[in-house]
Amino acid sequence: MQLGMIGLGRMGANMALRLSRGGHDVVGFDPVPAARTGAEGEGLATVASLEALAERVDAPRVLWMMVPAGAIVDATIASLQPLLSPGDVLVDGGNSFYQDSQRRAAALDDAGIAYLDVGTSGGVWGLAEGYSLMIGGHEDAARRLSPVFATLAPAADRGWARVGPSGAGHYAKMIHNGIEYGMMQAYAEGFAILERRQDLIADLPQLAELWRHGSVVRSWLLDLTAGALAGNPQLDGIAPYVPDSGEGRWTVAEAIALDVAAPVITQSLIERLRSRDDNAFADKLLSAMRNAFGGHAVKRD
Amino acid sequence: MQLGMIGLGRMGANMALRLSRGGHDVVGFDPVPAARTGAEGEGLATVASLEALAERVDAPRVLWMMVPAGAIVDATIASLQPLLSPGDVLVDGGNSFYQDSQRRAAALDDAGIAYLDVGTSGGVWGLAEGYSLMIGGHEDAARRLSPVFATLAPAADRGWARVGPSGAGHYAKMIHNGIEYGMMQAYAEGFAILERRQDLIADLPQLAELWRHGSVVRSWLLDLTAGALAGNPQLDGIAPYVPDSGEGRWTVAEAIALDVAAPVITQSLIERLRSRDDNAFADKLLSAMRNAFGGHAVKRD
Amino acid sequence: MQLGMIGLGRMGANMALRLSRGGHDVVGFDPVPAARTGAEGEGLATVASLEALAERVDAPRVLWMMVPAGAIVDATIASLQPLLSPGDVLVDGGNSFYQDSQRRAAALDDAGIAYLDVGTSGGVWGLAEGYSLMIGGHEDAARRLSPVFATLAPAADRGWARVGPSGAGHYAKMIHNGIEYGMMQAYAEGFAILERRQDLIADLPQLAELWRHGSVVRSWLLDLTAGALAGNPQLDGIAPYVPDSGEGRWTVAEAIALDVAAPVITQSLIERLRSRDDNAFADKLLSAMRNAFGGHAVKRD
Amino acid sequence: MQLGMIGLGRMGANMALRLSRGGHDVVGFDPVPAARTGAEGEGLATVASLEALAERVDAPRVLWMMVPAGAIVDATIASLQPLLSPGDVLVDGGNSFYQDSQRRAAALDDAGIAYLDVGTSGGVWGLAEGYSLMIGGHEDAARRLSPVFATLAPAADRGWARVGPSGAGHYAKMIHNGIEYGMMQAYAEGFAILERRQDLIADLPQLAELWRHGSVVRSWLLDLTAGALAGNPQLDGIAPYVPDSGEGRWTVAEAIALDVAAPVITQSLIERLRSRDDNAFADKLLSAMRNAFGGHAVKRD
Repeated sequence: MQLGMIGLGRMGANMALRLSRGGHDVVGFDPVPAARTGAEGEGLATVASLEALAERVDAPRVLWMMVPAGAIVDATIASLQPLLSPGDVLVDGGNSFYQDSQRRAAALDDAGIAYLDVGTSGGVWGLAEGYSLMIGGHEDAARRLSPVFATLAPAADRGWARVGPSGAGHYAKMIHNGIEYGMMQAYAEGFAILERRQDLIADLPQLAELWRHGSVVRSWLLDLTAGALAGNPQLDGIAPYVPDSGEGRWTVAEAIALDVAAPVITQSLIERLRSRDDNAFADKLLSAMRNAFGGHAVKRD
Repeated sequence: MQLGMIGLGRMGANMALRLSRGGHDVVGFDPVPAARTGAEGEGLATVASLEALAERVDAPRVLWMMVPAGAIVDATIASLQPLLSPGDVLVDGGNSFYQDSQRRAAALDDAGIAYLDVGTSGGVWGLAEGYSLMIGGHEDAARRLSPVFATLAPAADRGWARVGPSGAGHYAKMIHNGIEYGMMQAYAEGFAILERRQDLIADLPQLAELWRHGSVVRSWLLDLTAGALAGNPQLDGIAPYVPDSGEGRWTVAEAIALDVAAPVITQSLIERLRSRDDNAFADKLLSAMRNAFGGHAVKRD
Repeated sequence: MQLGMIGLGRMGANMALRLSRGGHDVVGFDPVPAARTGAEGEGLATVASLEALAERVDAPRVLWMMVPAGAIVDATIASLQPLLSPGDVLVDGGNSFYQDSQRRAAALDDAGIAYLDVGTSGGVWGLAEGYSLMIGGHEDAARRLSPVFATLAPAADRGWARVGPSGAGHYAKMIHNGIEYGMMQAYAEGFAILERRQDLIADLPQLAELWRHGSVVRSWLLDLTAGALAGNPQLDGIAPYVPDSGEGRWTVAEAIALDVAAPVITQSLIERLRSRDDNAFADKLLSAMRNAFGGHAVKRD
Repeated sequence: MQLGMIGLGRMGANMALRLSRGGHDVVGFDPVPAARTGAEGEGLATVASLEALAERVDAPRVLWMMVPAGAIVDATIASLQPLLSPGDVLVDGGNSFYQDSQRRAAALDDAGIAYLDVGTSGGVWGLAEGYSLMIGGHEDAARRLSPVFATLAPAADRGWARVGPSGAGHYAKMIHNGIEYGMMQAYAEGFAILERRQDLIADLPQLAELWRHGSVVRSWLLDLTAGALAGNPQLDGIAPYVPDSGEGRWTVAEAIALDVAAPVITQSLIERLRSRDDNAFADKLLSAMRNAFGGHAVKRD
C-alpha cells in the first residue's frame, strides 16, 4: 500500500526500503537533504517537505514517523496536523514514552485521525531480518495497516500484533528494552569474569560461538556478541562507556510506580550510569571515610 | 563409537539415547533398577554394576558420568578407578565445581586415565535439539571423543569445542549458568511489570510470542517463556519459589575472588534466596525500626 | 516568638509542644477536633479554623504547616493565602517534594509571602531530643525564624541551618531519607544473617547493645534497633511488611536523573517493594522457566 | 593485670597504650624493630622476641595478638605454642575468619590453652574513645580477662561482652563490618547525589554537620564524614578507589551459604570492586553489543 515515511535516518530509511522492496508505494521525507539523497541512492522516492508528502500520499493517508522521541515528535505532529484529513492514520514507530503516545492519540482522535504507537525492535538488522512490531491504538487502523506490518515483520504471520489500545505498543517496547538491558548486562558480566581467566579459557570468541548452538543462553544478542568478539576478542579501542536512552529509565520508574521489584533491570541501568562516571564522588568519600576511622591510606589522584 | 553412560537420570538417559540413535554403541548403568528399566524401555542396553560396565566396554574405554555433582562423583570415581586401565577416558558431564574437576583430573592422570570435564547445556530439549558441550582436559582425549561430541551437539561441526585444560569445561558451564540466571531474572521482571498493566496489554502470551520474531530480546529462553505463558497465562498454581543449584553461587564467588563486579548475576541469585524466605527477619526489623523512630504503625503477623 | 502550627498530628503536636515549652507563644490548628482536643490536653492553645488562626497570630505572621505532603499542602495554601498579608512567613515542615516547594515558594513570593521549606528529621523522639532542621528559602525569613529553629533543634547552635534557596530544605530531607533507607537495610541484613546463627550468637539484643559503644556502626538507628530487639528479640508478631513514603522514590529518581549511581539506596527501596509482594509473578515465571528447560519440578501453590 | 601484646602496629600499639594508661602491666612485642621503638617512645615496655615475651609475662599468661589475619596468625601461634603453658590465655583481636578461629581454638584447647577470638572495632579512635569488643570462646577465660576488656572498652560496663563460643567474636565482627560497608555506601551515595546539586545546596560540610544533631541518620560514621568533608569539601586529591578487606567478602559468602538475602551489603562490596576496575571489560562489551544491534556509535578509548 501507499505510505509516507517521515524520518530517513538509519531506522526510517531501512524500513522504507524494506517496504519498498516488499511492493509498497513508499515516499520518504527528511528535513536533512543528505538523508534524502542517501535514501534516493537506495532507490527510494523522496519529497522535500511535509506539505509535499501530504500531497503526494493519497487520502486517507498512511504516514509513519521514525523520528527522535520527545519534542521532535510533537513538533512533527504540529506541522502535520493541518495537512491531514479525517481518516488518515499516523504512526509513531520511534521510542516515545507511552504516556506521550496516549496524549497524542487522544488529541488527534478529536480530529478524526487515527494514531498508532508502534514499538519497533530489530535495529540495523531489521532491513534484512524484519522487525518486531508492537502495535497500540485503534483496532480498525491497525487492521488497515496490516499489509505494512506483514512486510516489515520477519514473516507475514508473525513478529507483529496489536497488543492493546493507545500507548500499549510503546509500553511493550519500553519493557522490551528494560529486559534487553538486563540480558546485555548478564552476558557482559559473564564474559568479564571469563576475560580474567584466560589462563583457563583462552578463546572467548570460540566459547561465545559454541554457546550459540544448543545452550540455554543462546539468543540473538549472543549471536551479535559472538560476532563482536570474533572481530575484536579483547575489545581493543572500545571505551568502557555505555549510553542509555529513555526506555530503561522509564522501565525503572514504571516498576517503582507499580510497586514491582525489578532489581536486575534497575541495576543494569545503574551500571550504565556508573560506566560514564569516571571520578565518582561516592568512591572518593568511601576512601576518605576509611581513612578517617581506620587510618587506612588513601590512594591519591 | 562404544561408550558407557553412568547415570540414567533425565540427562543421562537422554544423552545415551541421542548417542544410540546416532549410531554409537552405548551401554548404560544406573544403581537404581527403575532407571535401568526406564532406559531399557527406550531401547538402551544396560548393565547392573560398574564392574559389568567396565567389562562390557572395550579398553581403551570411554565412560561418561551424568551423576549429581559433589560426593557422588567422587564415590563413583573411587569405585571405577580399580576397574579402569591406562588409556581409558572418563568424562564428567555433570555440573561439578571446576576445581573439583581439576583435582580429579590430576589424580586420574597419575593412573594414565584421561579425565574430561564437559559442561553440558540443553536440558530436556537436548535429546531432540542437541546439547552445547564445553570440553576441558587433554587435547588427545578430546579429539578421540570427537565422534561422540559431534553426535551429542546440535550439529557435527558446531555446539561443541574443547575450550581449555582440565576444569575449563566446567568453568565455562558455571559462567553459562550465571548468565542464565541473569537472563531469566530480566525476563521475569519484565513480565512481572507487564502483569500489573493488563489494563493496557491484556495478552502476555501474545506479546511473548511476538517478541520471538525479530526483536532484540529473542532467545531460546524466550521461546520457552512464551510456551509456558501460552499454556498458563496467569501461572496459576505455581508457587513463587525458585531453587538454585551450585553454579550460580560459584559464579558469584568467582567474580568476587577475581575482583570483577557482577551485580546482576549476583542479584539474580539473591532474588532466588529471597523467593524462598517467606518470613524475612530483615523486613520485620525494618518495620520495627520505622515504628521506633517514626511511630509508624507495624503490620501484625 | 508567636507561631501558628497547622496540623496537630504526631509531628505537629510534638513540635508545637517543644516550642511552647521553650517559651514561644504557640497556637495550633487541626481540622480534626480530636487532634485539637489531644493538643489541648497537653496544654496547647488551639483554634478551630484557619481564619481563627490568621486572626489569632499577629502580622507579620509565622505559620508552620505539618500536614501530609501532596494535595493537602496545596489545599492548605489555597485556603490560607487570602488570609495572609505581605511579610508573613509560611513554613512547610513536612516531607514535600522539593520541586513542589519551589513552585509554591515562587507563587507566594508574588504575594509578598515568604515560604520556607524545612526538612524535619527526628521522628517521635524530637519532642525530647530536638529536631534536625534543613531550611530552604529566603535568607531574611530564615533569619527571622531563628528563635523558632533554635528551640526546635537539639541545641540553639546546632542541628539547624539554612542550606540553600527554596527547595533546598526538602531536597536535603529527601536525600537524608534515602540514606536512612540504605542504613536501615544494612542493619536489617546484618541482623537477619545473625538470626540464622543463634547456634553461635544466641543473644542478638546483647550484641546490638554492645555495638552501641565504641563500634564503627554505632548510630542513633542502632540505638533504636537495640531497643526494639531488647523488647522483642524474635520480633514476634511483626509482619515482614515495610511501607515506604515518597522520599526514597524521589531519591532514586533524582539519582537517575543526575546520572549518579546509587545502587544501595535504590536496592533498599526495591527491598521494601518486595516485602509487600507476597506472590511475586516474577518468581512464578522463573519457576516455570526452570521447569520448561530443565524439567525441574515446580513447587505448587 | 599483666598482658603481653603481640603486634605493635596502629591497632596493637594503641590498645597496649590504653591498657597501660588504665593501670595494666603491659609488655609489647613486634618483630619489626621500628614498631618496638615507636611503642617505647609512647612509654610502653617491649621485648624483642616471643621467647622473651613468654618469659616476661607470668604464667598463667595473658597474651593478645593484633597481627594481620591469615597466615601470620597461624605462624605466630606455631611459634608461641611451645612457649605456652596450660592455663594460658591467647587472644586473637584481629580480623580473622571465624572458622579459622574455631579451628585454632580447638587445636589449642587440646594443649590446655584457652583461645579467645575478640572482634575489635573502633579504629584509630579507640585509644581515646575505647573499643567495642565482641568476645568468643571459653566463659572462664573471658571472665578472667574482664579487667582487660573493661579498660579497652569505652566504659567498664559497656561496649564489651562474650557473645558466644569460639568463633562467635569474629563472626560478630564479620557481620559488623558487613553492616559498616552498607552504611558507608548509603552515605556515599547520598553525598554523591548532593554533590551534583551544589546549585541548590552549596555547602555539603554544613549539611553533614547539621545532620549530626537530631537527624535519623546521625551516627559515628557521619561524625567522621562531616569531619572529612569539613577539611576537604570537594575531596580533592582523593582517588575514587576503595579497597576492601576480608570481612565484607565473608559476610556475602555467609549470607549466601545461609540462604539469606543481603542485597545491600553485597552490592556495597561489589561497588568497591567496581571502584578499582577502571577499564571494565563488561562495559566495553555492552558498548560493542549496542553497536552490533543498533549501529550506535562506540566511544573510542
